[in-house]
Amino acid sequence: MKNSRSLGTVTPQRVHFDGPFQLISGARLEQFDLVYETYGRLNAARSNAILICHALSGTHHVAGTYQGDPHSTGWWDNMVGPGKPVDTDRFFVVGVNNLGGCNGSTGPSSADPATGRLFGARFPFVTVEDWVHAQARLADHLNIQRFAAVMGGSLGAMQALQWSLSYPARLGHAIVIAGAPNLSAQNIGFNEVARQAIITDPDFYGGDYYAHAVIPERGLRLARMLGHITYLSDDAMMEKFGRELLADKPRFSLEVEFEIESYLRYQGDKFAERFDANTYLIMTKALDYFDPAASTEGNLSIALAPAKAQFLVVSFTTDWRFSPARSHEIVKALLDNSLTVSYAEIESTQGHDAFLMENEYYFSVVGAYLERVAREVEA
Amino acid sequence: MKNSRSLGTVTPQRVHFDGPFQLISGARLEQFDLVYETYGRLNAARSNAILICHALSGTHHVAGTYQGDPHSTGWWDNMVGPGKPVDTDRFFVVGVNNLGGCNGSTGPSSADPATGRLFGARFPFVTVEDWVHAQARLADHLNIQRFAAVMGGSLGAMQALQWSLSYPARLGHAIVIAGAPNLSAQNIGFNEVARQAIITDPDFYGGDYYAHAVIPERGLRLARMLGHITYLSDDAMMEKFGRELLADKPRFSLEVEFEIESYLRYQGDKFAERFDANTYLIMTKALDYFDPAASTEGNLSIALAPAKAQFLVVSFTTDWRFSPARSHEIVKALLDNSLTVSYAEIESTQGHDAFLMENEYYFSVVGAYLERVAREVEA
Repeated sequence: MKNSRSLGTVTPQRVHFDGPFQLISGARLEQFDLVYETYGRLNAARSNAILICHALSGTHHVAGTYQGDPHSTGWWDNMVGPGKPVDTDRFFVVGVNNLGGCNGSTGPSSADPATGRLFGARFPFVTVEDWVHAQARLADHLNIQRFAAVMGGSLGAMQALQWSLSYPARLGHAIVIAGAPNLSAQNIGFNEVARQAIITDPDFYGGDYYAHAVIPERGLRLARMLGHITYLSDDAMMEKFGRELLADKPRFSLEVEFEIESYLRYQGDKFAERFDANTYLIMTKALDYFDPAASTEGNLSIALAPAKAQFLVVSFTTDWRFSPARSHEIVKALLDNSLTVSYAEIESTQGHDAFLMENEYYFSVVGAYLERVAREVEA
Repeated sequence: MKNSRSLGTVTPQRVHFDGPFQLISGARLEQFDLVYETYGRLNAARSNAILICHALSGTHHVAGTYQGDPHSTGWWDNMVGPGKPVDTDRFFVVGVNNLGGCNGSTGPSSADPATGRLFGARFPFVTVEDWVHAQARLADHLNIQRFAAVMGGSLGAMQALQWSLSYPARLGHAIVIAGAPNLSAQNIGFNEVARQAIITDPDFYGGDYYAHAVIPERGLRLARMLGHITYLSDDAMMEKFGRELLADKPRFSLEVEFEIESYLRYQGDKFAERFDANTYLIMTKALDYFDPAASTEGNLSIALAPAKAQFLVVSFTTDWRFSPARSHEIVKALLDNSLTVSYAEIESTQGHDAFLMENEYYFSVVGAYLERVAREVEA
């Protein structure tokens, strides 16, 4: 972006919440921690805060870098920073690691305060609604009564949508990028293959692999390889890798041969090193369960009736995981409720991953929308 | 089909080939067996034979049932039989288990005659070209100089196409259903995830699991679950399974919850019981390697120049694994060579699996085409 700069060094913070936290599943946490980051300055009216919700493997570390680690750039650093579409010169931006995560917030790899042992498989399943309620606690802690906007892509988009239903009075705008009103059977199928890869890995030990000093690396690796295929479009993969071989000719062996194999193996290996398997299971289940219209007999328009926010909905032409058609469903249901909706369908070859990538039209749409929001809160 | 009947009881046969068989990889088999079935009667001119090539997990058992086992119906029984599109009252139909298979033909689970031990990982990789050459040996054995047609779907379609290149004078027609001129990077990616699932299964033992009296069941199961998702269209899955739960409400556990999960687990379990993991690896590698245009700098029109057959090319609208666009590439390259091509794009919600399913328009197209072929050979 023109005149945009990096945020520079940022520092994560931690907040501890005491007292029972009821989950949708029926389980209850007696206490929990959330790790979060903030960028920019909260204005005197406390009206310029934007909450960024992360997707499957994201974290609270949205933008900037950590002291002494120049490679630690946040996952949405192209989108968030001074002069960027989410302009930290004008907005106070909050990123948070979700409950059940593995980047500092309480999750399966945390110690259960009741027993001192790691939760492991005993950590309860959480839902998008649970995350939104936990994020609302963080907002209370930050003394933010109302977010100017809640935004996210993919699973993060689901959280933005859920915010408009759970706390209609606590956000001005919901920015729903590359989202869907629920997962299709195909989406659930891919998640299930990933979960089965993890669960059937002999190193999973029913989720208690921590006690055995191993991780279900094989399973995590497969889950991530599969995920990556579904994040990219067929065209993007052909463009990037084609049928190129690493060597001059086929090796007729099971060693890596095609560029695409090399890429997927690398992504899988990297992910297995950094991500917790139990968290992966929890995240995919939260995706599967999300379905606001489940309680309205499938009628999304009735399900979205509580919403009061204004909406920006964005989809990408080659996203086959959460296709534009799924965004259309959301847009239609919002319009059925006479809500103000802007919708942009972005031309992109990048598939679902497009929501993380710099794209002039996409960034202009988000930037222009938030410019309007900034003027609102500065008025 | 109207007036169509089942073939009734059929019996597999076996043929042993002695003498070196050179493979594309550079490896050589000193001898091998093929298991095959035939239906119908070869006419006096030996001109009415149709070869059916199987796909990834298919076999020589194309149609009919085995004595005493009413559940043993062949995999293309709806297509092949008396009065069916491939009419066994008029054609002599040959089905063959490919080299490297696990249904009787020589493959990784066969004993290596040189050592008496099972081949296991020592079985060489085979290609579509190798299969076609082995099938030509079978044709020699059956004293069939020229097939009226060679046909297949998916990986079978690739064999039909390869026949027209390797033995242009030995077939009248090639019927190429739900095929592609090569795999896309996405296709290879899915295959690679499936292979890694098998290879990293601790029960794989580098391909020598036979010696350990185990099978890499976890890996095979994952491979098949993933395969099934890609064989079906998103729409077909929504139609068939939707977001239906087995129970009344979410269980918030890793037990099976959604209908689609149940279906995939069942398919995975069934497959792991019946299919050999080494064969699965060989078949997916053959798919990855197939690429007639690799030797013509990507120019498919030049690559298909040797073909002399007439072609029927069929694709299915919701097939996203081998989409109609891939069939268009084949059709265009054939037309560039002034060959006679019929092309049908069948409206179907069934995805890639559509090639195995009864569909009035599809069956009419194949039936009418073969009616013409029958008249040719009977003339």
